[in-house]
Amino acid sequence: MSTAFSELVSKITEAQTLGSIGSLLSWDQETYMPAAAAGFRASQTSLIAAMAHERRTSARIGELLAACESDKALLADAAVAADVREMRRDYDLATKLPTDLVARLAKITSEAQEVWKEARAKSDFEHFRPTLQKVIDLTREKALCIGSPTGEPYDALLDEYEPGMTAARVEAIFTPLRARLSALVAQVCSSKHQLDASVLKKKVPVDQQQAFGLEVLKAMGFDLHAGRLDVTTHPFCSGMAPGDTRLTTRYTSESILEPLYGTMHEGGHGLYEQGLPKSDRYGRPSAEAVSLGMHESQSRLWENFVGRSRAFWTWALPTAKRCCPPHFDAVTLDQVYAAANVVQRSFIRVEADEATYNLHIMLRFGLERAIMNGDLALKDLPGEWNKQFKSLLGVDVPDDRRGCLQDVHWSFGLIGYFPTYTLGNLYAAQFWEAAQRAMPDMLSKMERGDLSGLLNWLRSNIHAHGRRYRAEELCQRVTGQPLSADPLMRHLEGKLKPLYKI
Amino acid sequence: MSTAFSELVSKITEAQTLGSIGSLLSWDQETYMPAAAAGFRASQTSLIAAMAHERRTSARIGELLAACESDKALLADAAVAADVREMRRDYDLATKLPTDLVARLAKITSEAQEVWKEARAKSDFEHFRPTLQKVIDLTREKALCIGSPTGEPYDALLDEYEPGMTAARVEAIFTPLRARLSALVAQVCSSKHQLDASVLKKKVPVDQQQAFGLEVLKAMGFDLHAGRLDVTTHPFCSGMAPGDTRLTTRYTSESILEPLYGTMHEGGHGLYEQGLPKSDRYGRPSAEAVSLGMHESQSRLWENFVGRSRAFWTWALPTAKRCCPPHFDAVTLDQVYAAANVVQRSFIRVEADEATYNLHIMLRFGLERAIMNGDLALKDLPGEWNKQFKSLLGVDVPDDRRGCLQDVHWSFGLIGYFPTYTLGNLYAAQFWEAAQRAMPDMLSKMERGDLSGLLNWLRSNIHAHGRRYRAEELCQRVTGQPLSADPLMRHLEGKLKPLYKI
Repeated sequence: MSTAFSELVSKITEAQTLGSIGSLLSWDQETYMPAAAAGFRASQTSLIAAMAHERRTSARIGELLAACESDKALLADAAVAADVREMRRDYDLATKLPTDLVARLAKITSEAQEVWKEARAKSDFEHFRPTLQKVIDLTREKALCIGSPTGEPYDALLDEYEPGMTAARVEAIFTPLRARLSALVAQVCSSKHQLDASVLKKKVPVDQQQAFGLEVLKAMGFDLHAGRLDVTTHPFCSGMAPGDTRLTTRYTSESILEPLYGTMHEGGHGLYEQGLPKSDRYGRPSAEAVSLGMHESQSRLWENFVGRSRAFWTWALPTAKRCCPPHFDAVTLDQVYAAANVVQRSFIRVEADEATYNLHIMLRFGLERAIMNGDLALKDLPGEWNKQFKSLLGVDVPDDRRGCLQDVHWSFGLIGYFPTYTLGNLYAAQFWEAAQRAMPDMLSKMERGDLSGLLNWLRSNIHAHGRRYRAEELCQRVTGQPLSADPLMRHLEGKLKPLYKI
Repeated sequence: MSTAFSELVSKITEAQTLGSIGSLLSWDQETYMPAAAAGFRASQTSLIAAMAHERRTSARIGELLAACESDKALLADAAVAADVREMRRDYDLATKLPTDLVARLAKITSEAQEVWKEARAKSDFEHFRPTLQKVIDLTREKALCIGSPTGEPYDALLDEYEPGMTAARVEAIFTPLRARLSALVAQVCSSKHQLDASVLKKKVPVDQQQAFGLEVLKAMGFDLHAGRLDVTTHPFCSGMAPGDTRLTTRYTSESILEPLYGTMHEGGHGLYEQGLPKSDRYGRPSAEAVSLGMHESQSRLWENFVGRSRAFWTWALPTAKRCCPPHFDAVTLDQVYAAANVVQRSFIRVEADEATYNLHIMLRFGLERAIMNGDLALKDLPGEWNKQFKSLLGVDVPDDRRGCLQDVHWSFGLIGYFPTYTLGNLYAAQFWEAAQRAMPDMLSKMERGDLSGLLNWLRSNIHAHGRRYRAEELCQRVTGQPLSADPLMRHLEGKLKPLYKI
């Protein structure tokens, strides 16, 4: 190791340690912090964030990076070269934006969140439009500062969440997915044979759900010695530090379905965080997650591919019977498998099922890209939303609250973020197929509650690499195929057609 | 306000904000942190501590202090003058110790804690002696660096915990207390009428104890909107930030006595933290606690003076009956009042009752002062401990584990710390009398569960001042009397003589 590289790692480690403390402040705020502490918590959080930013953007890091980049002996080690490449990326991203622009964006997005809440409550997009326009304008300014090789401003934004991805590439993958999925959903929804979710939508006491959820997390391989599960209003996963990955979920006594899949979803994120080589390589990008899409692939894999499979329920149903007496006593495997796979057209993305969810995402991707490119004016957004929604899902959006005002993302300036959700599903499907090819007995072991095959496969194929490869490159290496819509469609068609007797 | 003073407050506020983040890291470590996170937590904690120390000792603070100290207009405001006086004290304390000495002390005390554990397990003081000698030597070096007006090294150490207090002054107060208390304990223990603790030492389910503990905390006026109560192995109170005071307690299903008084003790500390004017004056000493002794006075006041009074139990017994059915159904007020006031000679300080506790402290004070002054060699410590223990409490210490090896303090280098426990009891007794003089109906209101009189009195007389006055000065102002042994003896004699029919 060169001295420059060692100093670089040590400087970045300090910035990340501060970041990890910021994560604890946030986690505590969502879980146990007394309400009266909120005001001072903002001071604590902004102090830590400012200190971390100062360290991430210091001129010394620029010097050290330049030294590493011209050190051929150092870069001969491919793992180190990848670290240096990703450190350069982070440094450029952190230093490219003028402080003034960051401050203006922070101010307007903070205002925008309040205005969005009011607008959504009134279901009145016009109330939100002038503020959203300011967010869009500043976000475009941000995109221009960052720049993109393609020249399309949207790509600069997308690249922040999904390094190396472009809108054109997303569109090339989404186009066949959109058509095939829309057709499948239409078939499913018009089938005479409809599925019944009631066996998972029944009242189960929260302590029983908790016990069942923990059994599932343990079976997934989530290490509770190096993590926790708590309750918050909005579930999340924070891989805050080496040995410290905290999940949250929420329970309702009305249904076990959403809490269970919420726990499995965050558990999937948590397994990725626990699988990253943080204890060996903290401070190096090779100990970090590749992208939002790759992170989402891990959560969706466990939530949808494992959690809604017949193999999983072969083990999970007897477990539920044991943890939640007497609520599952009379439930059969056929019933619970069907209940886990109900497909229904609905207006709200976060309530959508595994299949229709991606149609919601593709709608948003197309619209935000058009807005960013100047091809769609905000005044036309509600009309365009509703028109495309009808064409994708076949139903009329009744109002803006259930239409273009439902998501908080744009008020935060999060543009280019939505596609990572569906990219996650696509990666997950591709990994699911590859893991089964590699382990023909994976599903039969899963039926007995042995989920370790999949986790070990993910550990060595995905988690161990950190950011060494970009997401699509990793997918190609691991599955032998470029990312495509095929595996996801095979998965959905293979499951839904028999269930819906199509 | 001068610009120098404003800048000073803002610099200290930043250091304290970092300190508050360090407190959250510690609290989390004791409560919810996953075990595997312990290693990295040490890096987080030491990074924050180093940053806070760097800010507290910066040369700029020295310059600003000098500017404030020569600004007569500024110092004309007595509250500001007191702030500047205390800021100077903090700065001098933080800058007087050479970094090298601090590092050597940290190293040896970290080792000493392990060696002490081994020695205590083996009940073998000789195993601990060489390491303790190193701690003592370095602590004496520390005392010489700090210096004291009296020239006695012990005073430099004591002053750190109890600003302005000297060993000679402590001895002047302890001398009459020692004699009178030793005599009272002898009378009590030889009385034919002994009290029975069994009604508070019965098995009560933890959830019932928790409910009862929370009722008591609420009655005390602890604000759970600005605080919490959690469970840890060692109870503590962390007044970590404005609006954020966190208590911990521990339960055993074997007895309600220790958990209840543990909760009331930490609750008393917590009320002081909640009463300090932190939201208005954060960063100024006038928003901070005066001393360890003053802090302890608040915890002991609620634990012993309120919590073991007949007035309190007049309300608390029916409350216990309601919260803990059926465990108190047949218990009478006489029984529970007697059970709360059992006096017994015992070897372990932390298990001692309200009366004998102070004898344990006075023993330690005399011995550590003699060690520090070179009047007692460590090889003679166990013999001297046992001899004095016999003379104070009338019983023979069976082994070092139950003698001079029982406390962790010395292994931490905490010398000069013990007397603050009894100073706390003395202040508490003096405040208890003054509050009753000011509010003749305080006890009768307390019988109905209205404890607000005492809290309001403490808020305005003690909490509101922060560090404006030193502890004894505050005591004199509030009670009209210098600190003395009389109020504590009146309290103990007035309560124990009738109970023990002496």
